[in-house]
Amino acid sequence: MTTDISPVKSFLHCETPAAWLDKALENKEILLIDHARCEKKAASTALSLMFKYPEREQLLHKLSRLAREELRHFEQVFDLMRERKVEYQHLSASRYAAGMRKEMRTGEEGALTDVLVVGAYIEARSCERFHALAPLFDESDPKLARYYRFLLKSESRHFTDYLALAEEYSDEPIDDRVRVFGELEAELINRPDSVYRFHSGIPQ
Amino acid sequence: MTTDISPVKSFLHCETPAAWLDKALENKEILLIDHARCEKKAASTALSLMFKYPEREQLLHKLSRLAREELRHFEQVFDLMRERKVEYQHLSASRYAAGMRKEMRTGEEGALTDVLVVGAYIEARSCERFHALAPLFDESDPKLARYYRFLLKSESRHFTDYLALAEEYSDEPIDDRVRVFGELEAELINRPDSVYRFHSGIPQ
Repeated sequence: MTTDISPVKSFLHCETPAAWLDKALENKEILLIDHARCEKKAASTALSLMFKYPEREQLLHKLSRLAREELRHFEQVFDLMRERKVEYQHLSASRYAAGMRKEMRTGEEGALTDVLVVGAYIEARSCERFHALAPLFDESDPKLARYYRFLLKSESRHFTDYLALAEEYSDEPIDDRVRVFGELEAELINRPDSVYRFHSGIPQ
Repeated sequence: MTTDISPVKSFLHCETPAAWLDKALENKEILLIDHARCEKKAASTALSLMFKYPEREQLLHKLSRLAREELRHFEQVFDLMRERKVEYQHLSASRYAAGMRKEMRTGEEGALTDVLVVGAYIEARSCERFHALAPLFDESDPKLARYYRFLLKSESRHFTDYLALAEEYSDEPIDDRVRVFGELEAELINRPDSVYRFHSGIPQ
């Protein structure tokens, strides 16, 4: 069964550029190592929100399950790396998350809305990238292609979870913040980037 | 089936004092709230080790699964709280973890051994406390008694995991550090404590 990713595509302001996809096809090792790091980081972000907002029931309910799922994905990517004898190497983070963070508000109410909207964008972009990568790997690496198709379903669900939480906990409509981060996210994806990572921009 | 907790009991230098158990029977709400916090904290500690030692395969393998299990327990305790209409309240941490932390070394090699040995003690104590609490709740709260019996199995497994990792990653025998933290842990459990929490000492 194919997952309908049209809500993800209409949320994002652009598709992944072809140049990034070409680079990913040639550099599967970095893709795997950075993907493992992203899954670990996603679990850790969810958990840190659970510590910061320990009285928000829906947030705890959804993010604890989300963190568990990210950890399970970490284990799966880690197993793929071991099967393929991909050695761990330290990778610096790309500018992506830091670029989004710069725009995030720090006041109590605004901070929660923004971190949840950014969470939604990161999950949506991951979903869109797995969706674009899967068919490209169908011939050369069908196992990876299948795995990416499996993953994009969870990423699409996580995108919805983050967005629903942002709506639930904001006193104001979130449309403005969604637009601001949507434009910023697309800019980070479409601008030339000196670093190649899972969420990086156009490879230089 | 009963879990054999004799390895846990011989690892710990003392049993939970009767005065703490009496207090716990009278203060189930604090017990639940602090228990939920401990599960969340345990997941977060495991995850932070996964970030600190991203090249240690066995550590990643075991601690990712452990963190997932702690999160599942968090969800279960949280559900019990909601069923019982126990309202979240902020609880300061007891002196227990901070007391252990004071003795932990900071150098690369020593730091990892110590944090893993301390992890083993925290899991072992949790296991011993659930084992002591379960029969006390059999009549008044059979659901909680059953849940504690279920949990002590995982805690016992986590204790073994932490200890095995400490042995695997230490270049020297770990006996000395096990003794040091065993004595310290027992002292924190046996000394009068102004605060009542899941891992606190003798209630004042």
